[in-house]
Formats: sequence, structure tokens, C-alpha cells
Amino acid sequence: MAQIIESIPNISEGQRKDVIEACVDQIRTTAGCTLLDYSSDPAHNRTVITYIGDAKGVEEASVKLVKKAAELIDLTKHVGEHPRMGAVDVMPFLPVKDATTEDCIELSKVVGKRIAEEAGVPVFLYENSATRPERQNLVKIRKGQFEGMAEKVQEEDWEPDFGGRRIHPTAGVMAVGARPPLVAFNINLDTDDVELAKEIAKTIREKDGGFKCVKSMGFDVVAHGRQIAQVSCNMTNFEVTSLYTVTEKVRELAAAKGVKVLETELIGLCPMKALIETAQQYLNIEGFDYDKQVLENHIL
Amino acid sequence: MAQIIESIPNISEGQRKDVIEACVDQIRTTAGCTLLDYSSDPAHNRTVITYIGDAKGVEEASVKLVKKAAELIDLTKHVGEHPRMGAVDVMPFLPVKDATTEDCIELSKVVGKRIAEEAGVPVFLYENSATRPERQNLVKIRKGQFEGMAEKVQEEDWEPDFGGRRIHPTAGVMAVGARPPLVAFNINLDTDDVELAKEIAKTIREKDGGFKCVKSMGFDVVAHGRQIAQVSCNMTNFEVTSLYTVTEKVRELAAAKGVKVLETELIGLCPMKALIETAQQYLNIEGFDYDKQVLENHIL
Repeated sequence: MAQIIESIPNISEGQRKDVIEACVDQIRTTAGCTLLDYSSDPAHNRTVITYIGDAKGVEEASVKLVKKAAELIDLTKHVGEHPRMGAVDVMPFLPVKDATTEDCIELSKVVGKRIAEEAGVPVFLYENSATRPERQNLVKIRKGQFEGMAEKVQEEDWEPDFGGRRIHPTAGVMAVGARPPLVAFNINLDTDDVELAKEIAKTIREKDGGFKCVKSMGFDVVAHGRQIAQVSCNMTNFEVTSLYTVTEKVRELAAAKGVKVLETELIGLCPMKALIETAQQYLNIEGFDYDKQVLENHIL
Repeated sequence: MAQIIESIPNISEGQRKDVIEACVDQIRTTAGCTLLDYSSDPAHNRTVITYIGDAKGVEEASVKLVKKAAELIDLTKHVGEHPRMGAVDVMPFLPVKDATTEDCIELSKVVGKRIAEEAGVPVFLYENSATRPERQNLVKIRKGQFEGMAEKVQEEDWEPDFGGRRIHPTAGVMAVGARPPLVAFNINLDTDDVELAKEIAKTIREKDGGFKCVKSMGFDVVAHGRQIAQVSCNMTNFEVTSLYTVTEKVRELAAAKGVKVLETELIGLCPMKALIETAQQYLNIEGFDYDKQVLENHIL
């Protein structure tokens, strides 16, 4: 497989196994595309599916997935904790190997147009594919959710990029776009002081003047049988701000209050580059050439 | 490519480009095998070649390489700084993906037998393939070099594993065997005190009671326009002792003398696992699953 693009769509079904399997089967049965993982959250009533392939394979699998989901999932009957606007809610494309962000933007436009035409589901382009600044942010697009979307698409600024000012009666609308890999990364502090975790999260997150491409919140979690304060991070571009940089800063901020970092957690799949960049920064490797010196980059 | 085995043979020619290219061409023209890299050292008069493939592809390429090298390289005329005993001096096989040490041992025996039969070059099995303890160590096998080998193979303990008690008149003998990936890793100290580097090297190396699978020496090198003391390491099994463990220890030992670690150096190719394990240890990732959580492990 020369070119590798990854897609990680969320579908609005996390309970009915037959529906989930029928959707995942669309990936399994597409040539040029490989299913990596899928995981359902019944409370959110939502399933995340991960697959990779070349642009053509990912295009075919993605369009087939939306057609099947639109056939089987009825948003007028959907209840779940997580906000949603479509049978397939969001479908990001990420460059993994021999693919650029531009390739993924191009793919998102091809797939978005086909989804509108072949599944009848209007599409907003989001993140790097967004056609206007306010559409970069999925939360802004999804505001109003499925129930408010028929009205929202009539507003001057909210005509979908493909499919016109309408919604699919049962499958709603959806977001399709290119984005960098996201790493979900938590840092557990050796304290039950959740206020400290919240204070640190505020210091490091971009929104409040911290590191670029870092979203962060402080939480109270149970680990090792006790209450732990956790700095939970979404690293939206680890090449801009690395796991190393965030970890060092959190250690420094916690140490200033006499608190140690207990451990970290990595949620789900992570590109090797995110971890190798962290090793490189920790080791301070002089003249390191990621593309040439990592054996696997010659094999992939 | 499902199974991946790597071979990194050294041939005793680092000057004549036509000979080097003719040898490397044996790898380039073999199906099921991919040339990754080759690099010549004219002073050592030696070239290291790196290639990967499945067992069958690596077997074919390896036998073809030895036949061509035996045809073109004459050890009776070879001069170089590095010790050597054959036209191809040493040929290790390393498991990379979906291959075990046992697969590599098996491959080394198949290749060793074919080399003796088809190229007429007697073979010692070494490292994990060794048939007796003293043959694990390449330095012990190679002692006496090409010039002393005709006599050495007559000694009771030194009959080659394949090919009988003889040497090829111009191509000598060679070592073939399975070994773990070796990472060549240097740590530069912010001092010109080479005695400190030598003392640290002695503390951390296995030979003198330090870390298992670490070889180390202290050197005087020039970097950034000045004299630098360097702790040079060969990590012969980074899963036993990691780059992180060695770096932390060297930092601690240097700090005790008021010296900082300036930077590290990674020589040549490195498996992603060596760096990811270092990131994992630095981040102290709770419950990290290397096989499942590193995206590229699902692709390779």
C-alpha cells in the first residue's frame, strides 16, 4: 500500500449490534481499504470506526458507509448523550503516509459531493476543508443538532457545501473534512486536588493563551482505587505541540505546588510519529532524520 | 509484505565503486527483497548493506550477494583498518515484523548451508544461531582474521558449521546468524573530560557489571567546533535495556560530577520500537499496548 489515508467517522448508533455490523461491513467489503478498529459507546449511542487505504479505497468505503447508515439509522428516533446532526455525524480524513493535507482536502470534496448525490445527505466541509472560517469548528456546525438543522440550513451563513438548503428527513446532515491526527492524552497527578488540574489545564490550553493545538480540561477520576486529579488533553497537532512539551510543562506546574505526575494515559490509536517525536525531544537527538532513520519509514 | 526479516551484511570492499555496485545489484534484482540502504567506509575498506524481505526473498538475495562478493573481492589483496575474515565478513538476520528469533535462526542455517555449497565459502553460525557458546561472539570467531583462518579452522574447536575445515582461497570464511536489532547510540557530555566518559562507560556496560545488553566506551570527539567527551553505546537488545534507561543513568552519573548531557546521537537506522519504548518510559504511559495502540502496527 503506497498511499495511506485514514478515516475515523462517527455513526449515530451505539446500541443495535445488527445496524453497527451492517455499517462496518461496508468497510470490510471494500477493496483498497482496511478496517482497523470500531468501538461503540451505548450511553452516547455512537460508534467510532477506523479504517485506512488509498484515496480511491477510502472514497468508496466512505460513500458506501454513509448510504448504509442513512438507510438504517433514523435520527428522529435517536437518543444519546453526545450531540449529533446526522446518521453519520462526522467523517474526517487524515494523511498517514505519502499523502498530504491537500490530498485529504481533495478527497473530502470528492466524497462530500458523492454523499450529497448518492445518499441524499447534505454535507458541510469542516476543519482544513472548511470553505469559511466558522466552519472549521465542528461544534459550531453541529450547534442546533439534528432537531434544529432544517431551520439552520435556511440561515444565510449555513447553506451546506453540497446538497442544498435541506436535510435528509431521517439521516440529517453531516461534516466531512481533512484534519491532522488527534492524540487523546491524559496526565494523572498524584493528588485529589481537581482545582489544580483545572488550573493547569487552563494554563496549557490554546484557548486561554497556552500551547497551540492543545485542548485541555481538568477532571476528577478514579484510578488505582482512589480519587485522582487528571489533566485531560486533546493534542490536535502533535507536530506543532508535542506530548513531550505538554508533559514537561505539566510536571513543572505541578511541581510548583509540590505535586508529582503519577502517570499518563494514551487513548486509542496513536501515530508512531507522535511517540517518536517525544523520544527525540527527550533524548535531544542531534541531527535526527525521522524519514531516513526510522526503519519502518522504509517499509510502510 | 507480511513477514519482514532484515539483513545487514558487511562486505570487505569500501573503495571500488564498480565492485560495490555489482554486489548491491544482487539485492536490487531479487524479488521479495528490498534494498534499504548501503554505505561505504573507504578507510575501513568495508560497505554495510541493509535490506528487508520475507524469509525466501532474503535467503535468495543473501546467497546471491555472497556468490558475487566471492567472485569480485580478493582478501589476499584487501587492506583496511577494520578486522575482517571474508569477502562478506558477517551477515546477521533480524526479525522486524511477523518473524521470530527462531525464524531468523532457521534462515541463517538454510543460508549458511547454501553459501558453503554454492559459493564454496565456509560459514560459522554466530550470535543466537551459535552452536557453541564461544561462537556467539563475532570477535572471537574473527580472531586471527583472513590471514590466520586457514590454520585456525584446523584447531579442534574451530571447524566451521558448514563447508568443512578449509577456507575459500580468496573469499575466506564468514559468520551468519540471527541477532536482535542493534542500536548505535552516543551520548555527548558538556565537557572535554574524556576520563569521565570512560568512567561512565565502564559503569553502564554489561562487561563491567552494568546494564545487560549494553556495550559502551568513552571517546574524545569534536562536535560544535570543540572537544567533547562522548559515551558511545551499542545497545544490543533495546527491549532488555532501553535508550531511556541508559540516558537517565548517564545523566545521573554526569550530574554527580557537575556535568550536563549535551545531546545524543543515533547512528543509522533504528526500529520504531526502540524510540517508542523510550517515549513510553519517559511518559510513563499506564497500560500502553504497543501492538494495538501504535497505528503503524496495523499497517505494516
